[in-house]
Amino acid sequence: MEKFTFVEGGVAAAEGFKASGVLNKIKESRTTYDTALIFSDCVCNAAGVFTQNRVKAECVKFTKKQIADGKAQAVIMNSVNANACTGEQGYKNAEKEALAVAEKLCVQKENVLVCSTGVIGQQLPVQKILDGLDKSVSLLSKTGNVEARQAIMTTDTKYKEVALKVKIGGKTVTMGTMAKGSGMIHINLGTMLSVVTTDCSISAAMLEKALKLSVAGTYNCVSIDGDTSTNDTLLILANGKAGNAEITEEGEDFDIFLDALNTLNTQMAKKIAADGEGASRLVTCNVTGADTVENARGLAKAVICSNLVKAAFFGADANWGRILDAMGYSGFNFTPEKTSVSFLSRKDSKRYFEDGKQNGGEESSIKVFDHGVPLDFDEELAKKILTEEAVEILVELEDGNACGTAWGCDLTYDYVKINGDYRT
Amino acid sequence: MEKFTFVEGGVAAAEGFKASGVLNKIKESRTTYDTALIFSDCVCNAAGVFTQNRVKAECVKFTKKQIADGKAQAVIMNSVNANACTGEQGYKNAEKEALAVAEKLCVQKENVLVCSTGVIGQQLPVQKILDGLDKSVSLLSKTGNVEARQAIMTTDTKYKEVALKVKIGGKTVTMGTMAKGSGMIHINLGTMLSVVTTDCSISAAMLEKALKLSVAGTYNCVSIDGDTSTNDTLLILANGKAGNAEITEEGEDFDIFLDALNTLNTQMAKKIAADGEGASRLVTCNVTGADTVENARGLAKAVICSNLVKAAFFGADANWGRILDAMGYSGFNFTPEKTSVSFLSRKDSKRYFEDGKQNGGEESSIKVFDHGVPLDFDEELAKKILTEEAVEILVELEDGNACGTAWGCDLTYDYVKINGDYRT
Repeated sequence: MEKFTFVEGGVAAAEGFKASGVLNKIKESRTTYDTALIFSDCVCNAAGVFTQNRVKAECVKFTKKQIADGKAQAVIMNSVNANACTGEQGYKNAEKEALAVAEKLCVQKENVLVCSTGVIGQQLPVQKILDGLDKSVSLLSKTGNVEARQAIMTTDTKYKEVALKVKIGGKTVTMGTMAKGSGMIHINLGTMLSVVTTDCSISAAMLEKALKLSVAGTYNCVSIDGDTSTNDTLLILANGKAGNAEITEEGEDFDIFLDALNTLNTQMAKKIAADGEGASRLVTCNVTGADTVENARGLAKAVICSNLVKAAFFGADANWGRILDAMGYSGFNFTPEKTSVSFLSRKDSKRYFEDGKQNGGEESSIKVFDHGVPLDFDEELAKKILTEEAVEILVELEDGNACGTAWGCDLTYDYVKINGDYRT
Repeated sequence: MEKFTFVEGGVAAAEGFKASGVLNKIKESRTTYDTALIFSDCVCNAAGVFTQNRVKAECVKFTKKQIADGKAQAVIMNSVNANACTGEQGYKNAEKEALAVAEKLCVQKENVLVCSTGVIGQQLPVQKILDGLDKSVSLLSKTGNVEARQAIMTTDTKYKEVALKVKIGGKTVTMGTMAKGSGMIHINLGTMLSVVTTDCSISAAMLEKALKLSVAGTYNCVSIDGDTSTNDTLLILANGKAGNAEITEEGEDFDIFLDALNTLNTQMAKKIAADGEGASRLVTCNVTGADTVENARGLAKAVICSNLVKAAFFGADANWGRILDAMGYSGFNFTPEKTSVSFLSRKDSKRYFEDGKQNGGEESSIKVFDHGVPLDFDEELAKKILTEEAVEILVELEDGNACGTAWGCDLTYDYVKINGDYRT
């Protein structure tokens, strides 16, 4: 039997969780939902990780405070407006929102978290969200994930959601997540907003531990454009309804929990990279044989962050020199003379975008650089591989046994268009 | 009287220096010059700074060794091929080139420096350069800077050259420079190849000191695409022909020398930024009121390195949120609540591209963010300012008295096209 069973339901999949999405016209021109609500019918243990940006959105400042006690029961999220660089008034708006949600849902106001994403520097029209609250609450359901996952999308072209079931301590635990993220995406934390919900019984301290361990190899290994947002937030809520013995320390149960969380977060990381603003393909860089995991991940991230590498992938150009160049300036350790580089295409990469399943076997590969020496390679085959929708750069080192992966996308005309062009 | 008098002649302007440029067809399709030679009729004191990339071109490894004794008399430079990732054979090719130049010019082989720029990972067809050496030598002249400055261009659309005269110790000293640089440009060292020649009498140790001090605020403050090349090289040769008392320690003469060098390098930094691959405008970020120069420069660099800021400038979009965001994730110290941001346009920015003169007064400015608070501003005026060919972002802090400047360009369709597009 597979370790995990993937299921429908996203953030509403786990026992006791419901979700909704409504359109409050936070911006007049918005036609799809813009406000998501997630609710657990009992208080959850909770943890969060937040943007490392010195400029933090007001909702981030507020939610960090709210979650400090390790408890939460509801999350209200909006797109279109980031509530960032909005000063005292912005903070008060987040507070007001939480208070209103708490009243409507009859939960403690300390247990409501607030997330925003969208344009920086405009005051959030909070009254519109409050006016829509009755609807947000009345629509809460087990299938409300469908509207919720859309309500947090900004420049995303695809919703990002995945859920799974796993056995922990003899009980079936469900864990689900949704995220938005397409631009202003960089390591530390490579997303804008993400929420994970689970019915697992686990202490707030262990939740936080799992979250931090998982983020290092997943969301922190994604880059679209090298810009770390002011609003990055990843929340996890666990309501204990699965009835397993509470996880309060490291051990087998914690390991399975972490494995499940890593599986969800890795899939979300890939979905975000694949849906990078303007992206035409997902670019994965795998580094093997490094001396430490830190070096492996650091090298992989430098490769997928390089504008020149990204532009080469847009052109399906097997320009391995730019890969070596990026590794060289990354500051992470490797021995150029013992480095080999290959390109691989992935046969069923489409599945990432459609059903969130694991990746399949490689279709074809080509080595272009072997132990520090350029190889004569079949340029036609290289072009064929690099034209696939999902391409992997395999960097093999001989400095040790550590490996690391980072996910990014190509740099395209459309990225420039989405972020800059008023001329068309 | 002005401190400096700008003159023609570039790297051949200083007494005793000559230059040439020839076409050796290093790549068959090249139609303009591809090989430059610079020669001093006596041995020079010399210093260099080189790429910090762990992957160093073979010519960089070779030239670092050659210049270690603080002496040089000739520099041979080629475009089209970078002689990087070419292993032992690449190193031997650089060596062979130096030896041949030494023989032809009757100088010591230890005094010949070799620079290459172009594609990574292909062996340099060194024989073509050797076959053209007779021509390279016979064409050496005081006006050969015209061909030499073209011979080092790759994706550059404009040559980059400037020269000046300055009084040091009662004598007239001449200093000139040329550089190439357009893509794969990032701080540490923000250029590909640059040579400064001067007839000033100055010790090798003080040359190195001046070079390192100057680079920190000039070439190391330019970014086009965040990619640090494998070939970055900045050389300085001083032959002492001006007859001033040799500068062997800090003091008034050294200060004037450094001031002159900073003036040249700043102009070159701007020229490189303005001619960034695909760039439609020069973007300067000035940070004032920082607590340290390091923080001021760090913040300025983060702003001009941000893909989102760069894309916004392509669209002439007054998106100050992205500027704050970039400063926030830079890791450099500032207080968001005491930060103000303005945009300025520069009236005679054209002159940078044409005659290398100093910039003139500002034409207009608009403040968009004041002490942490967004301002309502005239969007039409902002658009007008941001549509200029040279735009300045002024970030005013109140954390101290230090300031710093960084130079970059916008991110355009053409950058993506130049570096990636095989589809058009």
